[in-house]
Amino acid sequence: MTTIRTQVGIIGAGPAGLLLGEMLEREGISSVIIDTRTREDIEQTIRAGILEQSTIDVLDAIVPNHRARTAGYRHEGIELDFDGAGHRIDFEALVGQAVYLYPQHEVLIDLLVAADARNADIRLEVTANDVVDLDTATPRILATTKDGEPLEIVCDFVVGADGTRGISRALVNGARREGHFREYPFAWFGILTEAAPSAPELIYAASERGFALISQRNETVQRMYLQCDPEMPVDAMTDDEIWDEFQARVPATELKRGPIFQRDVLRFRSFVAAKLRNGPMFLVGDSAHTVPPTGAKGMNVAVADVVLLNRALREHYAGGGDAFLDSYEEDALVRIWKAQHFSYWMTSMLHAAPNETSYDHNRRIAELRTVTDSEAGRKFLAEGYTGWQFAGWEPVEK
Amino acid sequence: MTTIRTQVGIIGAGPAGLLLGEMLEREGISSVIIDTRTREDIEQTIRAGILEQSTIDVLDAIVPNHRARTAGYRHEGIELDFDGAGHRIDFEALVGQAVYLYPQHEVLIDLLVAADARNADIRLEVTANDVVDLDTATPRILATTKDGEPLEIVCDFVVGADGTRGISRALVNGARREGHFREYPFAWFGILTEAAPSAPELIYAASERGFALISQRNETVQRMYLQCDPEMPVDAMTDDEIWDEFQARVPATELKRGPIFQRDVLRFRSFVAAKLRNGPMFLVGDSAHTVPPTGAKGMNVAVADVVLLNRALREHYAGGGDAFLDSYEEDALVRIWKAQHFSYWMTSMLHAAPNETSYDHNRRIAELRTVTDSEAGRKFLAEGYTGWQFAGWEPVEK
Repeated sequence: MTTIRTQVGIIGAGPAGLLLGEMLEREGISSVIIDTRTREDIEQTIRAGILEQSTIDVLDAIVPNHRARTAGYRHEGIELDFDGAGHRIDFEALVGQAVYLYPQHEVLIDLLVAADARNADIRLEVTANDVVDLDTATPRILATTKDGEPLEIVCDFVVGADGTRGISRALVNGARREGHFREYPFAWFGILTEAAPSAPELIYAASERGFALISQRNETVQRMYLQCDPEMPVDAMTDDEIWDEFQARVPATELKRGPIFQRDVLRFRSFVAAKLRNGPMFLVGDSAHTVPPTGAKGMNVAVADVVLLNRALREHYAGGGDAFLDSYEEDALVRIWKAQHFSYWMTSMLHAAPNETSYDHNRRIAELRTVTDSEAGRKFLAEGYTGWQFAGWEPVEK
Repeated sequence: MTTIRTQVGIIGAGPAGLLLGEMLEREGISSVIIDTRTREDIEQTIRAGILEQSTIDVLDAIVPNHRARTAGYRHEGIELDFDGAGHRIDFEALVGQAVYLYPQHEVLIDLLVAADARNADIRLEVTANDVVDLDTATPRILATTKDGEPLEIVCDFVVGADGTRGISRALVNGARREGHFREYPFAWFGILTEAAPSAPELIYAASERGFALISQRNETVQRMYLQCDPEMPVDAMTDDEIWDEFQARVPATELKRGPIFQRDVLRFRSFVAAKLRNGPMFLVGDSAHTVPPTGAKGMNVAVADVVLLNRALREHYAGGGDAFLDSYEEDALVRIWKAQHFSYWMTSMLHAAPNETSYDHNRRIAELRTVTDSEAGRKFLAEGYTGWQFAGWEPVEK
């Protein structure tokens, strides 16, 4: 049995856990991060990524080596397609902000490089089995190494950053993982294709045939999604059928076709945990909440959580009291629910539910018209997409 | 059998029919208006009324004697109550517009006075039974007078302005009255009370106990609504219980109580007819569409229809061709659906559906926060509430 003593024990080396480790280091607070995966697994967890301006600001301050500005793509708007035409939401003109297309696994690579540089205590292939003594001032994370050896981390605080399927959600919310839940009656059929980008920015298309998203990965690989039945088999369509379907849903833009080398189906779920805290244990990121991909909010809300928790831990260790720890849940939920609403809004405005009536359909298209016809409507959408200011964020000197 | 010849036969002496008669008179186009009701019935059809700025502009130009600016009340904002506090939407500051609280029956009285002044051909207590020869250039309205005498109106065009229950909807959309329909799983329990206004502007309250609207009639009579079950009997609550329920739903404002002298239950329905035209017959106002009362849109959309149809008839008789007649349906539907969406949005954002989940509830409150926290959000709402510019409106010289 190996026992480690640290101030903050972090379960999960995803974006939230790794970023929190970097932030705490700058505050002089020790942390140990464990994750059941190998480094290769973590670096290959391919996920889309749209980074809000505020997320970039945090990376600039905390992860000086990050490549979002150089290897990522700055997008100053999106296009909403309906009625057979494109309607641009010009973020730069409307709110003076932009977003960066930079996949989550690239952020993870940057965070791991930063962790290497500070010789961080990150233990991979270590599986957290339980957290005990949550009613004391020295909770313990009980884990097992890849060699089957028991490992115990004794700490002041435990942070659950192990995502939707990790153990943390249940440790804070009970075995039933209590929370607020919404499921959607459709899914996204996603492809990766070897092709050049079809358009300079993302296209969100609300066509009569269903939703499509023309997203991107880089200059030679594109990511695209079709609204589909959640039970659709990934091999239900030939490549030609897939391309024809995309083109039919995005009539305003001629799509550049290429070989399709990956197909998957993404379920649409929304979730917010009932509690984000159990004594000295706190949840951040996907362990606390899930959004459907439509609003591109996932990683950004995780960063917002981490910013708030970092502030609370800094005040605690600096002798500033525990007011921010005590208000963490309430503070974080403000943005979490706004992001939930934004994701729901984009989803419901752009997708035809399978049981959509002709009334609902006409109303929904009128909603798109009302929003895009109005500068205030476009600005309101741009604010949500580029993200509201982070609460509790004070830039750290580099 | 009496036969009358006119250019435009109008079925229904509601706001849409009477206003169209006034507008056509100014274009030198003859019309005859029939309605099954007595003048007293028409003048006592008590309905709430929020007039958009554009509606006031039309009244200013067409009904010089109207009293909306003198007997009505100019409201430069509304208050949205949630989380126990009021959040003002300042129309004047946001969009430089206001609305007027001026009940629909007062508009009808003004329109009838104007009709008297021009000696208009308005035949009351005349029941329209059918419209025939819609496939010819001289359609005929077949009607019966109060004395049981047959009356035939031979015209170039027929306008259906006889509301939700009139014969026109079916004459254009078939016996099944085809259209787009939505019903809501709640209703409004409304009261009239002898009391002073509790607040200077309308209060829309999204409380944990359900929605409430604190509206007004004048200095001594107030109109208020509680969200309720559609099957609720009007005598289900005592006066004291009613007042306590209102006060519990509107905690941010102390309500002025008074004797309750009318109680009713209003169903919530949305409807848009499949077609607005059948040959030479056109639908305007409630015969073409219905909105729930939340967005205060009903009369304003009717005025928007009339403005478009008046333009189309003017062009026809002035030798300008029938392009506007041919595009009337498409042109009118743009605003009709926007108003449908706005009414749906206000309704769904402010009411708890009986089956609302905890997820839906938290998301809905976050939506209210997102809208009210953002100037763009408040402005987007103010634009919808005060109303978009009327298409086809050219002020007429007084």
